[in-house]
Amino acid sequence: MKKKLRLGMVGGGKDAFIGSVHRIASRIDDKFEFVAGCLSSTPDKSQASGKELGLDSSRIYSSFEEMAEKESRMQDGIDVVSIVTPNHMHAKPSIEFLKKNIHVICDKPMTASINEAKQLYNEVKKSSSYFFLTHNYSGYPVIREIRQLILNGEIGKIRKVKGHYLQGWLGQKEEDKGINKQAEWRTDPQRSGIAGSVGDIGSHLMHIIEFVSGLKLKEIAAELTTFVSGRKLDDDANILLRMSENVKGSLSVSQIATGEENNLAFSIYGEKGAMHWSQENPNYARLSKIDKRDRIITRGTFSEINSMSYIRVPPGHPEGYLEGFAQIYSDIADIINNRDNSNNLLKIIPDEEVGIHIMNFISACVESSKNNSKWIKL
Amino acid sequence: MKKKLRLGMVGGGKDAFIGSVHRIASRIDDKFEFVAGCLSSTPDKSQASGKELGLDSSRIYSSFEEMAEKESRMQDGIDVVSIVTPNHMHAKPSIEFLKKNIHVICDKPMTASINEAKQLYNEVKKSSSYFFLTHNYSGYPVIREIRQLILNGEIGKIRKVKGHYLQGWLGQKEEDKGINKQAEWRTDPQRSGIAGSVGDIGSHLMHIIEFVSGLKLKEIAAELTTFVSGRKLDDDANILLRMSENVKGSLSVSQIATGEENNLAFSIYGEKGAMHWSQENPNYARLSKIDKRDRIITRGTFSEINSMSYIRVPPGHPEGYLEGFAQIYSDIADIINNRDNSNNLLKIIPDEEVGIHIMNFISACVESSKNNSKWIKL
Amino acid sequence: MKKKLRLGMVGGGKDAFIGSVHRIASRIDDKFEFVAGCLSSTPDKSQASGKELGLDSSRIYSSFEEMAEKESRMQDGIDVVSIVTPNHMHAKPSIEFLKKNIHVICDKPMTASINEAKQLYNEVKKSSSYFFLTHNYSGYPVIREIRQLILNGEIGKIRKVKGHYLQGWLGQKEEDKGINKQAEWRTDPQRSGIAGSVGDIGSHLMHIIEFVSGLKLKEIAAELTTFVSGRKLDDDANILLRMSENVKGSLSVSQIATGEENNLAFSIYGEKGAMHWSQENPNYARLSKIDKRDRIITRGTFSEINSMSYIRVPPGHPEGYLEGFAQIYSDIADIINNRDNSNNLLKIIPDEEVGIHIMNFISACVESSKNNSKWIKL
Amino acid sequence: MKKKLRLGMVGGGKDAFIGSVHRIASRIDDKFEFVAGCLSSTPDKSQASGKELGLDSSRIYSSFEEMAEKESRMQDGIDVVSIVTPNHMHAKPSIEFLKKNIHVICDKPMTASINEAKQLYNEVKKSSSYFFLTHNYSGYPVIREIRQLILNGEIGKIRKVKGHYLQGWLGQKEEDKGINKQAEWRTDPQRSGIAGSVGDIGSHLMHIIEFVSGLKLKEIAAELTTFVSGRKLDDDANILLRMSENVKGSLSVSQIATGEENNLAFSIYGEKGAMHWSQENPNYARLSKIDKRDRIITRGTFSEINSMSYIRVPPGHPEGYLEGFAQIYSDIADIINNRDNSNNLLKIIPDEEVGIHIMNFISACVESSKNNSKWIKL
Repeated sequence: MKKKLRLGMVGGGKDAFIGSVHRIASRIDDKFEFVAGCLSSTPDKSQASGKELGLDSSRIYSSFEEMAEKESRMQDGIDVVSIVTPNHMHAKPSIEFLKKNIHVICDKPMTASINEAKQLYNEVKKSSSYFFLTHNYSGYPVIREIRQLILNGEIGKIRKVKGHYLQGWLGQKEEDKGINKQAEWRTDPQRSGIAGSVGDIGSHLMHIIEFVSGLKLKEIAAELTTFVSGRKLDDDANILLRMSENVKGSLSVSQIATGEENNLAFSIYGEKGAMHWSQENPNYARLSKIDKRDRIITRGTFSEINSMSYIRVPPGHPEGYLEGFAQIYSDIADIINNRDNSNNLLKIIPDEEVGIHIMNFISACVESSKNNSKWIKL
Repeated sequence: MKKKLRLGMVGGGKDAFIGSVHRIASRIDDKFEFVAGCLSSTPDKSQASGKELGLDSSRIYSSFEEMAEKESRMQDGIDVVSIVTPNHMHAKPSIEFLKKNIHVICDKPMTASINEAKQLYNEVKKSSSYFFLTHNYSGYPVIREIRQLILNGEIGKIRKVKGHYLQGWLGQKEEDKGINKQAEWRTDPQRSGIAGSVGDIGSHLMHIIEFVSGLKLKEIAAELTTFVSGRKLDDDANILLRMSENVKGSLSVSQIATGEENNLAFSIYGEKGAMHWSQENPNYARLSKIDKRDRIITRGTFSEINSMSYIRVPPGHPEGYLEGFAQIYSDIADIINNRDNSNNLLKIIPDEEVGIHIMNFISACVESSKNNSKWIKL
Repeated sequence: MKKKLRLGMVGGGKDAFIGSVHRIASRIDDKFEFVAGCLSSTPDKSQASGKELGLDSSRIYSSFEEMAEKESRMQDGIDVVSIVTPNHMHAKPSIEFLKKNIHVICDKPMTASINEAKQLYNEVKKSSSYFFLTHNYSGYPVIREIRQLILNGEIGKIRKVKGHYLQGWLGQKEEDKGINKQAEWRTDPQRSGIAGSVGDIGSHLMHIIEFVSGLKLKEIAAELTTFVSGRKLDDDANILLRMSENVKGSLSVSQIATGEENNLAFSIYGEKGAMHWSQENPNYARLSKIDKRDRIITRGTFSEINSMSYIRVPPGHPEGYLEGFAQIYSDIADIINNRDNSNNLLKIIPDEEVGIHIMNFISACVESSKNNSKWIKL
Repeated sequence: MKKKLRLGMVGGGKDAFIGSVHRIASRIDDKFEFVAGCLSSTPDKSQASGKELGLDSSRIYSSFEEMAEKESRMQDGIDVVSIVTPNHMHAKPSIEFLKKNIHVICDKPMTASINEAKQLYNEVKKSSSYFFLTHNYSGYPVIREIRQLILNGEIGKIRKVKGHYLQGWLGQKEEDKGINKQAEWRTDPQRSGIAGSVGDIGSHLMHIIEFVSGLKLKEIAAELTTFVSGRKLDDDANILLRMSENVKGSLSVSQIATGEENNLAFSIYGEKGAMHWSQENPNYARLSKIDKRDRIITRGTFSEINSMSYIRVPPGHPEGYLEGFAQIYSDIADIINNRDNSNNLLKIIPDEEVGIHIMNFISACVESSKNNSKWIKL
């Protein structure tokens, strides 16, 4: 009979956004059972949120230290914990649970600063448990097909990449309105870290481009801008890239791009072809081939057997954000359960290596921008 | 503390497609707990499927009659059952569970024939339990916004409707290849009923147009065609419509439209505006207003407060088929639990009234086509 | 040295729309020289319009009879005349010029009634001159590529066609506002003929589907509606089709489809593939192939050498309506001048055969609609 | 009676591409008459090309000096000359004709080097004749509407711009194949100048962004790359921008972007809205407004009276590249003829000011790239 992984959660109480997404994602493929939580740093709020979510009150905790301690001693304690707090609260709980040999699923980016990231990275290396980052866009079926096609040489040696992640929701000073918790912590250097838009969404963009292309970032020249007066972190960035194999490129990142919702998109140009994808219509990609007609990739026309396994609904029916997120959770369960395909999955699920790399990217963006867009090596 | 509805399932064992979709949909919002099933008419297969899905073996049944009998006597027996069998097996189990006062969620169309539909309809009227049909496209957030905008008069008095549901997967004789269970039963009059494409997907198309427009079908003139030689049911249909309020229209339905996946789309033209939607990119709609610029409706720009409540992920992140399906399940749970908004939801969740109406539509299509596309009144 | 054809025009004075389009189209490839005209039935208006357009005053005429008479006697009289009047004034001038052995380019549809069409048809057959109809959409480069690909068997035996031509500009009673000449004559049975929307734009739609598919219309069942109260002709139509080779299909035609500009589009479904095209973005088409990825056809990826010859600007730069129209003019000049490719062009340029066929289509639509959408054979 | 401007041409003989485009554009609105040419630097070729185009042999010249000399002395000599040669042959003929008081229409960019540009600029200032550059994308009707809407404050104070111009036709070493004259001169520093992709298409991109936004470029940081081995000029560029009013932005330019045809597009983000346009579908634009639904701008929904005057065909019918190009020619004729709207047109038609500015942009891109993407002030 089917065994589910026991899942705990740090953060994700009332008013939180990403905690709820993690919980739904963990349920979709029925590989996790949510049993314990420290859902808020305020004990009362943690209790209330836990009850509303159906947790047994004995497993609703007031501090993540207590949770790690008690859960690790129970016979049926949690196998894995999701850390869904603001960035400044990623490192400490992650380290705490890793020390108790509990696997960690952490929201991105890894931490609020590169120093914290290095510390956490070292703890993961010492631990026997896994550390995963929910760079969730890498869970879309079409993204996995794109990645495999590029690895197979479908577009030849890559020359150029181009990407953007554009949002408009921070176009005004939302953080001062007293009604937008998301805006408050994401623009607060204490909780978000050294970067605003680059840390929050530039990190996703950089990850997905490296994920599908197989390239590594080598050098960046950036200009970070704060358009909204009085804001403490950047809300916009324009970035030049130099990547491995002499690939060149550019990124446009913004949270003040009026009218944009979650416009994440990329184009990868190779000597023999090109690949185009846009997150707001994620079930399709466009493949260009030199001197041939562009082809539309759908889940119904996947050529890679692996990609087939990521499909939950028939082609033509939209597979969405939650399913992509769920794919990451599902893969993590398979890795932890040491299923057949664990070794393959370990190569594509974001982990501490990805985490520290993206932290380096964020850090280099800030440094380049402070130095008049000087190129910074990674 | 949160109480989940106990859910049973008839059908949906291995090799089935829609059963798995129903189960995922029931988990997304965590309002159901799947506890019992008669997953196949073959006892061994039912047992194996049930175990794989984590059911307690005492609640895996060999017949739906036994399941209805035993579950209705348990203290913690199922509150609701999902019927996810081929069409010819909708009526009998539905009636059986209704008689035991267990709510029924039935896959569409209601039954395999109009006579069966009438019989089931009468049983629902006699029962104190609910009967729901998963016309799942009506669960998309944007569809609900469209419906509300049209009801509010945003496009004025409607004049013309136009819709299509086009698939290509039955372009060859899949039912003879011995590897496609879906093709086998859907083209088999014994299991599918009097219509092929019109019953399978024309029913969805007719429902969604009536759902968003608030109109009722009055008369149809149809031509049903079987393009694949030797096939027993229609695989294509062209239909003229006369609807209430002197609205005219046409439908194009096909399962032999090469290259199409699930291309369901409609346009509704009114005196003051028009509304356009396509299922393969379901998070957007286009609203035309007389002498003004077309507007793009996204979940981020809903004007109806009700529509807001159907959003699970931020605008710009795709909300997909499973979430739309889950919305139907979630609403059904709220109705059964008699939540605040039950009365509103009852108006929009497909039930026995919808079921028998769509059965009439299918039946009239077949009759019109047999009579050289003569207009048939409903 | 290059010799241009001398071109005359009947109709197309001030306030006219299509006359100006014909003149621009005739200039684009520099194969015609506009030298004579009877631009209005009002002599003063004809003179004023002719002068404004730079005609020599001796070649501005007050009646088409006079123009035909005088021009046919001049040494350097016109080689060809364009008839760009309302439909009721197509037959008479066409016949007059044909009798004087002057080639005729006539705007579509051929005439206002099927009887007039037959009369004109007979005159063409007796004449040594050419008669052409500007079904201009058949001049788009991509349309010609589509046609050739279908003829080559790229999508296999055709099963189903689906098309629409939707406009919204007659959604209110424009013909009564005193400021819209176009609306006035197009809704007036005296000038437009027996049909409104079906004659004006349904004729284009029917032609383009037959043009690209190579099929012939066999039978129609139609419902024509007049939505705007007091209007004398249909402003909307829904039509079922039976075509040669057992092809089935449907058309949706409207001039009251709020928000639509010139939304002409079709899909042609065959056993091995399908072809999709939309007039509002005419430089692209989509080709589906069974079990393969859809391909995007652009002018840069034409596979037919003939299609290449219809390109004036590099792929990626839009080739528009005027160029498509100009293609028809350019081909007509090549036919008249008996150029190398004249024989091929004669097969694709709309002529009297096309004209009378489309008149039959219009006539059958009206008849079917009057008979409760009874199927009418052509 | 209508008077046409007498037009001459330098360059544009057989095998040339842009000469033919200029001639068609000059015919569309019938404001020019093509009467003289020095169509090739090889006298025989000039004669042959001129005859084929219908020029009187007495007005086919072997050198532009001779042409300027003789035409300026004739009573009915040319009013205006089009210079459609490779970049290195823009300055000399332009200066020659300006000295003879003949208006000049010059293909972009202004010259092959910034020094030549300054020299030509000074000559224009001394001359009583006009100098125009065919930055043809500024002639699209929708572009003019966008520009006017932005000037009217529709999107508020601008913050960010983003643009790309991507082609793939130079992805391989076309210039060595002996069959591609365009590739040969455009990759040859002797004829093209100091920059490849940046000069050829980056110049268009920079111009259109400044044109619609009303902003001026202040500083750039660039990386120019030559991907095709052995090529002498850049074939790709990534550029950061600082513009007036503290606007930030980035450009991606490429001629090795496999599969791209003429993918020129931009987004302009302001405090109150945003504007999006793409050249490959140029009859539409998207307007975002803060907290409102995006609107689709078509020619049928222009709000600016001026924009209306640029429409030749009804909305919904595509107005293409040639018409956009023709608009530039038409405006130039109106300016030369000193029509009513000349003063308004002078503000938007590219002239020597635009020419030298874009030359500065190209020059700064090259300098920045040579200095490791250092910011360069303009």
